[in-house]
Amino acid sequence: MTDSPPVTLADVTLADVRDAAARIKGVAHRTPVLRSRTLDALAGAEVFVKCENFQRIGAFKFRGAYNAASRLSAAQLAKGIAAYSSGNHAQAVALAARELGSSAVILMPEDTPRSKKEATAGYGAEIVTYDRYTGDRVAIGEALAADRGLTLIPPYEHPDVIAGQGTAALELIEEAGDLDALVVPVGGGGLIAGSATAGKGLLPGLRVIGVEPEAGDDTRRSLEAGRRVPVPVPRTIADGQAADIPGALTFSLNQRLVDGIALVSDDQIRDAMRFAFERLKIVTEPSGASALAALLSHRVDRVPRRVGVIVSGGNIDTRRFTEILHG
Amino acid sequence: MTDSPPVTLADVTLADVRDAAARIKGVAHRTPVLRSRTLDALAGAEVFVKCENFQRIGAFKFRGAYNAASRLSAAQLAKGIAAYSSGNHAQAVALAARELGSSAVILMPEDTPRSKKEATAGYGAEIVTYDRYTGDRVAIGEALAADRGLTLIPPYEHPDVIAGQGTAALELIEEAGDLDALVVPVGGGGLIAGSATAGKGLLPGLRVIGVEPEAGDDTRRSLEAGRRVPVPVPRTIADGQAADIPGALTFSLNQRLVDGIALVSDDQIRDAMRFAFERLKIVTEPSGASALAALLSHRVDRVPRRVGVIVSGGNIDTRRFTEILHG
Repeated sequence: MTDSPPVTLADVTLADVRDAAARIKGVAHRTPVLRSRTLDALAGAEVFVKCENFQRIGAFKFRGAYNAASRLSAAQLAKGIAAYSSGNHAQAVALAARELGSSAVILMPEDTPRSKKEATAGYGAEIVTYDRYTGDRVAIGEALAADRGLTLIPPYEHPDVIAGQGTAALELIEEAGDLDALVVPVGGGGLIAGSATAGKGLLPGLRVIGVEPEAGDDTRRSLEAGRRVPVPVPRTIADGQAADIPGALTFSLNQRLVDGIALVSDDQIRDAMRFAFERLKIVTEPSGASALAALLSHRVDRVPRRVGVIVSGGNIDTRRFTEILHG
Repeated sequence: MTDSPPVTLADVTLADVRDAAARIKGVAHRTPVLRSRTLDALAGAEVFVKCENFQRIGAFKFRGAYNAASRLSAAQLAKGIAAYSSGNHAQAVALAARELGSSAVILMPEDTPRSKKEATAGYGAEIVTYDRYTGDRVAIGEALAADRGLTLIPPYEHPDVIAGQGTAALELIEEAGDLDALVVPVGGGGLIAGSATAGKGLLPGLRVIGVEPEAGDDTRRSLEAGRRVPVPVPRTIADGQAADIPGALTFSLNQRLVDGIALVSDDQIRDAMRFAFERLKIVTEPSGASALAALLSHRVDRVPRRVGVIVSGGNIDTRRFTEILHG
């Protein structure tokens, strides 16, 4: 609709990502980068797979949560941290709070699977539930934080969270060296905003491609429109990417940094999960495998020569894995 | 029945394992060693998991096959290599032959699953089948090799194969440092013989514990009896450990080197496969998870303080994985 220059709400720089890397060192895992001859042959490129499924709590989210939490004052940590999430960010904030000697209150939908509630409570967090059909999690979360004097750490709309997520790409490029493209799953947009910041800071010619499920292409539509465009709540197996509108901060960064969005179907994600299992011997959750799916199904145009791909998480139990693959 | 000293048919030394490590370097993967706080808490020890499921062909077998094949003369390599195996050794020899510019003929039971035949043929090997209910694979394999002038690489009864398998433990100890115990799956006995050779060579006080499925405890019985004792063909999900009698060479080494055998049930193996999937985010085949199962189900007596465990392989497709875990 418009050619007016994008407005960046807050900047995140390579220096911020480097500072985050120093803060998370020894607390977050430096996850492995896998190579596979079969994958290279199928993708037609040298592929470097950054395995955030091996990160603490099983997903990249711990990087951003810990980076943000570690910047809080002693007084803030003494009062505690709050977050709203039914997914990996909940466990990430719970563990970050525990690591810093703080406490966490996590707002989750009432119908969150018990296993996820238990995993979060297992890190010592208090769980507060709400009805997601009638309640607005942001408003409830902010009210809860204000009531109790807690500091809220949002899942992606925060420069420290974004800088923390960017450490995944920083490590990947430190290990893989020169890359011509980076392929990253997009949910709320925090991982790709941070990764693009780190990636383009280190390698100015790097192309950064985001990957969304076909049913949840809010970031692709928004980038095309030049403004944040909502989509109907996505129906996809990639529950970590079921965002219906990009974040304001992440979108302002991604407008400047992201070169394109590839879309993948649920079946392409299933095939990538099976490939990861049978050939790479690693467990991926659907959202975690979407960027790999884009490479395997040739949804990334102008095939790169040396490409990094982030496998963003592996939190799935064997029963759900079986349902998704063999329904 | 006897206290006569064990006779070692051929010796394998730490120097042999070190030579093997130099030969496989850059061809075999140096596989990662995983840590997990949850595993440490459950096992009551610091646990170092050597991930041979990430080895080429998906199992440790490539180490021994390549080490043995790489010692053949140019004339032997020009004529070709033979092996008998329905499992991971088949793919290991096929890939070793290809890497060395040789050719391979693999003898497999007629009823080998098509996926395993295809995987082996995919490395360029010729497949010859036999009826495993009427044929003796060793005799047929030797006749085939003699007929065609091929050099036979057996799955475990060979010093070079054993020395090659020992490189898994060598790498593990190089990375983990001092350990007081090493827990290793036992099938034909090659992996544990090589690993015990390397392990006790580096750490004289190391306890080496083998793990067998309850239904296939031929090595445990044989060590107790002081001679090789056959058991009925084992019925277990751990198909890579369904040996019914120890090898003569491996047994002569293991009599000297192995401190004890722990037994695990198929259900304990299932639980370990699920744990590996959900917490470690790695794929294990049943035999590959048996040593981990022994630790998780507290079948290793005198709980060690710092323990290495070998996850020996991850060759299983999603359908078979589902069958085993969710019937």
